[in-house]
Amino acid sequence: MINKYSNIKLSRDAKEHMYIQLFYAIKEMIEKEILKSNEKLPPIRKLADLLDVNNVTVVKAYDLLEKNKYVYKRVGSGTFVLPQQNFDREIENFEKFEDEIYEDLRLMDRGQIQISDDMINFASATPTPQLFPIDDFKNVLNEVLDRDKGFAFGYQDSKGFYPLRESIVEYLKFYKITTSTDNIQIISGAQQGIDVVAKVLLNYGDTIIVESPTYTGAIASFKTRGTKIVEVPIKKDGIDLEKLELYIKEYKPKAIYTMPNFQNPTGYSHSLIKKKKLLEIAKKNNLIIIEDDYLSDLNFYTDDNFTLKSMDNDENVIYIKSFSKIFMPGLRLGFLVVPLRFKNEIIAAKHTSDISTSSLIQRAFDLYLRKGIWKKHIKYMKKVYKERFDVMIEKLEELPNEISYEKPKGGINFWIDLPNKISVNEFYRDAIKEKIVFVPGSIFYPSKTNSNSLRLSIASVYPEEIKRGMDIFNNLLKKYLDIDKKKYYFENREFYRPIL
Amino acid sequence: MINKYSNIKLSRDAKEHMYIQLFYAIKEMIEKEILKSNEKLPPIRKLADLLDVNNVTVVKAYDLLEKNKYVYKRVGSGTFVLPQQNFDREIENFEKFEDEIYEDLRLMDRGQIQISDDMINFASATPTPQLFPIDDFKNVLNEVLDRDKGFAFGYQDSKGFYPLRESIVEYLKFYKITTSTDNIQIISGAQQGIDVVAKVLLNYGDTIIVESPTYTGAIASFKTRGTKIVEVPIKKDGIDLEKLELYIKEYKPKAIYTMPNFQNPTGYSHSLIKKKKLLEIAKKNNLIIIEDDYLSDLNFYTDDNFTLKSMDNDENVIYIKSFSKIFMPGLRLGFLVVPLRFKNEIIAAKHTSDISTSSLIQRAFDLYLRKGIWKKHIKYMKKVYKERFDVMIEKLEELPNEISYEKPKGGINFWIDLPNKISVNEFYRDAIKEKIVFVPGSIFYPSKTNSNSLRLSIASVYPEEIKRGMDIFNNLLKKYLDIDKKKYYFENREFYRPIL
Repeated sequence: MINKYSNIKLSRDAKEHMYIQLFYAIKEMIEKEILKSNEKLPPIRKLADLLDVNNVTVVKAYDLLEKNKYVYKRVGSGTFVLPQQNFDREIENFEKFEDEIYEDLRLMDRGQIQISDDMINFASATPTPQLFPIDDFKNVLNEVLDRDKGFAFGYQDSKGFYPLRESIVEYLKFYKITTSTDNIQIISGAQQGIDVVAKVLLNYGDTIIVESPTYTGAIASFKTRGTKIVEVPIKKDGIDLEKLELYIKEYKPKAIYTMPNFQNPTGYSHSLIKKKKLLEIAKKNNLIIIEDDYLSDLNFYTDDNFTLKSMDNDENVIYIKSFSKIFMPGLRLGFLVVPLRFKNEIIAAKHTSDISTSSLIQRAFDLYLRKGIWKKHIKYMKKVYKERFDVMIEKLEELPNEISYEKPKGGINFWIDLPNKISVNEFYRDAIKEKIVFVPGSIFYPSKTNSNSLRLSIASVYPEEIKRGMDIFNNLLKKYLDIDKKKYYFENREFYRPIL
Repeated sequence: MINKYSNIKLSRDAKEHMYIQLFYAIKEMIEKEILKSNEKLPPIRKLADLLDVNNVTVVKAYDLLEKNKYVYKRVGSGTFVLPQQNFDREIENFEKFEDEIYEDLRLMDRGQIQISDDMINFASATPTPQLFPIDDFKNVLNEVLDRDKGFAFGYQDSKGFYPLRESIVEYLKFYKITTSTDNIQIISGAQQGIDVVAKVLLNYGDTIIVESPTYTGAIASFKTRGTKIVEVPIKKDGIDLEKLELYIKEYKPKAIYTMPNFQNPTGYSHSLIKKKKLLEIAKKNNLIIIEDDYLSDLNFYTDDNFTLKSMDNDENVIYIKSFSKIFMPGLRLGFLVVPLRFKNEIIAAKHTSDISTSSLIQRAFDLYLRKGIWKKHIKYMKKVYKERFDVMIEKLEELPNEISYEKPKGGINFWIDLPNKISVNEFYRDAIKEKIVFVPGSIFYPSKTNSNSLRLSIASVYPEEIKRGMDIFNNLLKKYLDIDKKKYYFENREFYRPIL
């Protein structure tokens, strides 16, 4: 049966090694059942002669086939086709990402992966360095250094620099949150805030409710506590309250983690009614609400962007605020508003985490707030983001009818649902070839569910790029809407990555 | 029996409320058994008349007595003396600190509590701001801002700024640690390093071995993981290896946390033989060593200050280094050297903790290392600390013979064992009145054992202060060496803090 193999074409000029080309060729013959289960593969020398390659090439290809469970070997008698699982399962695997890729996507979300300059980056939810108020901040840094000298580098109170806590209490008045310096805990960014709160509220075996989908960093933090994570779907007007109440009864969770305004990744907001109801439910069930105020500041088309904290009469909300998204992520600065009954435990957990947040950065940011530069900057950022937001909305209106999305009223994220027949992950890999990148939805689910959605973010793209990028996105999508999946799979076999 | 009460003296001018004075008076009568178990206390109005106070004063005193378990009440029949426990146990309680004070002491250790200017501070192990190289650091900060612009404020790679990791690899060569950028993980200070490593190594129910006594921040971090903490005593030449091997068999720990050079709080160092044996034991038992290199740089009188990492041929050591002690604690910067098999988990745990360490600070410190200013600074700090160290040693030689201590060979901490008849905690409270402060030993034990030792630190005191402070210390100690404990207790009853 050696002639079955004579169709194999190997190229010495291809970017892939010959043995990998051979691996793919035999793999495909097995998948298409040209080679049957338990069929013997040709002896090494014979196949090498036929294909005019070195013996070693065949040896290595056979080894790789064995490692990837396409063949098995019997000492002294040769190499045989390993009976294969259902082909559909294979396609399913192909559509799922390896853990490594999940990790890459998470990093991309945080702007931590350098994307080549010719790519249009809808993946990063982090503003580009060009938007940072460098000169202003350099000035306050130097002013602080001259004013405070060595004290700018000493240990800071774990709770945070007192004047900064004062400034934040002032700042919060603008957002209708009435609180005191005693309630403010300075943190090294929102991620640390989540981690510190988790340390206080969640012990091994406890349950927390999260919106589904939600922020990947929160999921990771809750997982390190050995916490059971229960997902409640987020709908276009906010969290599914019926399911929430049901799960509260069933799982007796300690807390719920929520982003009530312009949620990440969906951009959805809880309606005012839902917000009030959520506070009631929390009160009734002794549930702590962890409110991650991701971006409530960017309310382009709504005045309903109240935070839960501003309505929290019963002190059940722990409020987390970072300045990363509209200021400078590399500063690692944010704050919590904490009900007084948790105050001491929160300080202790912060102390355990990193003792205190950089004294210099706290002092500089305090001055930045006090001088009113912050207000100027946020006004500027809102203008920049609104322009991008409007361009994005315009382009989304050109999407094919089959595509569904909810028009958010603010924020920087857009959540697109693709029809079931399209695999988002395949679409993702193809989009990259076309020089655009976004984040496939599946990474935002604690259970890594296969999701048919994706997130587009406008934090790192200029209006011109949004136009160009969304044209590419639209064209690719139109092509995809009538693609044959199985055919596509074989035409794109290089997507399969063997274990090397 | 109302005349028993006629000796009670209450003063309207005292700083304490009348009802608290009354509480102490009756408490003492109960303790001295002037009032017997189950004896009835006078009716409120009667006692109020006798002492010429308001009824409310008596009501409040009785309430406080009840709350502090000195009396019990029977509805309709009055207030009665609650049978008291053994008086010695009472003294023991008096000698123990409340949790709140423990917390204060921990903060003091980290230089986080402002101590009034007229106090001599042997408690803080944190250098004073006057020693920080402000001007040099301001220069590198500005150089980085001009060079990197917005990138100095963008998210940084979770693993750390690559050039800084390069600089650290270079820096470590000087300490005979050969490693690569791939092994280096940047952290926001040693405390975060411990916390990140704990996240990776320790899950709920796992066991870790620590030296006893040890660093309080490490204990706190391990506790948040739900970890069982097993204490192995540290002797003058390092950890007790026999007990260590015994406990490894018994508890099958995942890791050991150790400071092999100039340990905190004892100042003790492992001998070279013990270090080598520890590495062998770790290898044999599949035990990870978490080496906190607290201060190995300050080797004034030894060349044996090898780190375990420098001898770690089997890659069992996770090395933690902070720059807080000899540089600037408020920077929140340090690094780990991680065996490659833990590398990815460590990055993930760091990401979960605060995504990344401040980009600006990393870039500035990198420049600081590259320009060689660090070497200059560490030379300067060694000189400053050595002078203090020598003065302290000189003063310790004047201690009464009954007092035992081990002369360390470097570092900033001195561990003093008091004779059993002296209560360190009482001594501590008295020392504060004499305007010197140190840290009582008990806080350094995971189990809060009553300890008869204390830690003196030279990080925050000038040579002149060391001389003056140690004279006070010596005099107080001499007085204490023949004090009557029981008598002292009653003369100093204001130290007892009732639960209010």
